[in-house]
Amino acid sequence: MTGNGSESGRVVSDEANRPGDRDRATLPEDASRTPAENAQLALLLEVAGTPKPGNVDRARDLEDLRFEHFLAGAIGAGEGLRRAERGARVGVAFERAVAGMSRQSGGNTQFGCLLLLVPLVSAAARERLTADGLERIVADTTVADAVAFYRAFEHVDVAVRDPPADLDALDVRRGSAAASTLRDRGLTLADVLALSTETDSDDRIPDWNAVEWTTGFERTFAVADSIRNGTGPVGDRVARAFIDLLADRPDSLVATAHGPAVAREVSERAAAVRGDPEAANELADALVEENINPGTTADTVAAGIFVALERGLSV
Amino acid sequence: MTGNGSESGRVVSDEANRPGDRDRATLPEDASRTPAENAQLALLLEVAGTPKPGNVDRARDLEDLRFEHFLAGAIGAGEGLRRAERGARVGVAFERAVAGMSRQSGGNTQFGCLLLLVPLVSAAARERLTADGLERIVADTTVADAVAFYRAFEHVDVAVRDPPADLDALDVRRGSAAASTLRDRGLTLADVLALSTETDSDDRIPDWNAVEWTTGFERTFAVADSIRNGTGPVGDRVARAFIDLLADRPDSLVATAHGPAVAREVSERAAAVRGDPEAANELADALVEENINPGTTADTVAAGIFVALERGLSV
Repeated sequence: MTGNGSESGRVVSDEANRPGDRDRATLPEDASRTPAENAQLALLLEVAGTPKPGNVDRARDLEDLRFEHFLAGAIGAGEGLRRAERGARVGVAFERAVAGMSRQSGGNTQFGCLLLLVPLVSAAARERLTADGLERIVADTTVADAVAFYRAFEHVDVAVRDPPADLDALDVRRGSAAASTLRDRGLTLADVLALSTETDSDDRIPDWNAVEWTTGFERTFAVADSIRNGTGPVGDRVARAFIDLLADRPDSLVATAHGPAVAREVSERAAAVRGDPEAANELADALVEENINPGTTADTVAAGIFVALERGLSV
Repeated sequence: MTGNGSESGRVVSDEANRPGDRDRATLPEDASRTPAENAQLALLLEVAGTPKPGNVDRARDLEDLRFEHFLAGAIGAGEGLRRAERGARVGVAFERAVAGMSRQSGGNTQFGCLLLLVPLVSAAARERLTADGLERIVADTTVADAVAFYRAFEHVDVAVRDPPADLDALDVRRGSAAASTLRDRGLTLADVLALSTETDSDDRIPDWNAVEWTTGFERTFAVADSIRNGTGPVGDRVARAFIDLLADRPDSLVATAHGPAVAREVSERAAAVRGDPEAANELADALVEENINPGTTADTVAAGIFVALERGLSV
């Protein structure tokens, strides 16, 4: 693109100041990513990291769940994340994020990620992005947040466990139908997630996303530190963080789908490939073949990437 | 996540209607992607398509320009694209999109894509997404848009050709310093891009992005049709559209970097691998190795994906 020889001489600099041109008047401005944007980027960097054994990654699709569904999910989640940034209730922002995420044909791509990212964005925008800040965000949730959280399950099929019989009225799959029960019992979103951390036997592997909610996002911050302190391209750091976390902690979704014994065995297999990219690639292919998807581990990694970005990780 | 046995009986349904809870009051709502969101998704689907000979794709990085830089660029461009959607001037929205896109360490990832996507988003939001609608958007640009366009070159290094000596004052690399020349000559953004379509010899390959601006985005709409009418996952359709377009039309960026003869030879090589995914993969590896990046072809494809999404392509 070059120039021209026109010599009309018309002076039109007033154009730049006409009413309604406030965008221009504020330039130059800070064009850094906002918390909502960092959350979207965290979703993208998470799915792009490879190898991430058992999950969709830059190199692998599952049969009906492909990389492009995660790209669409990350973009669709934007409005909900921006509402969290602007101060909307956590439950309301979460429901909107899930509704937007679900506008693709792959099904549930990032429900669990968003359950962590929405309060993290709220903390980054309104509080401090620390354990204390997150504890305040969680403590501030209301019954309305719990109702919105249940409603979010109407937008997309989420793999969940059957509740004990006495808690059947609070099965998340009831969606909006659980609202009156939530109101009658005065349950906030924090209450609902605290109940989800209770294990019903020694053998049960907890819902790690609910655990994050009740522990000031302890593992999220630990993952963020490991990613920030890592070396090499972000995609490689993400893959290492995923394998380390999976090796350390049996995955909740694998336990729900295949039972706790399989979840523990998968963690042992992950531990065995630490530090060996070739073996990690083989494990990734094997778990995809076995239809074993450690989705909850990916949720925590996405949350950790967000915190790392907010704390200065550059891409 | 299950439920609990709490029986506090506190009725808190009023919580849901307290002042400030307007987000909830508007639910359920349409959570479909907006034009700005479809533009971001188009950027992501474009870079994810593979094989895209010579360019970063889902399977290939260049030495200093990696997949993750494109992810960050697509997210960073969001605010500028949303401003276009809300009715900001095309030039102003473009500059903001470029500023946000450039907040990653890979350099220029999507400058050319955004030069097409911003007017397309404006047309989708304010006009009709047709050749006529785009012609009106282009005709409405002002000198202020041209000034903002030049300013956008200050955010990122863009590969451009040296202008003829008599047009040196309008070299885009002058950035803001060209503002007084633009104002003195009364050049709108449409004028600047029309000048960029002029070739200075029979041998010269035009700047196809400028050609889109002056032809009602003719090739963009053609690419959109081919993607919508294609079969298989979107990523495969994108890759086919890229190779078809490259085969059909020597790439402007390749011509700028390596000369028109190389650009024409690359088109012949692309034509030879049409319909042969294995050969296309080999060409992709070869062009990366030769440092030949058909970036302008990718720009048109991204624009075509956007139009396809707006016209109902589902992901």
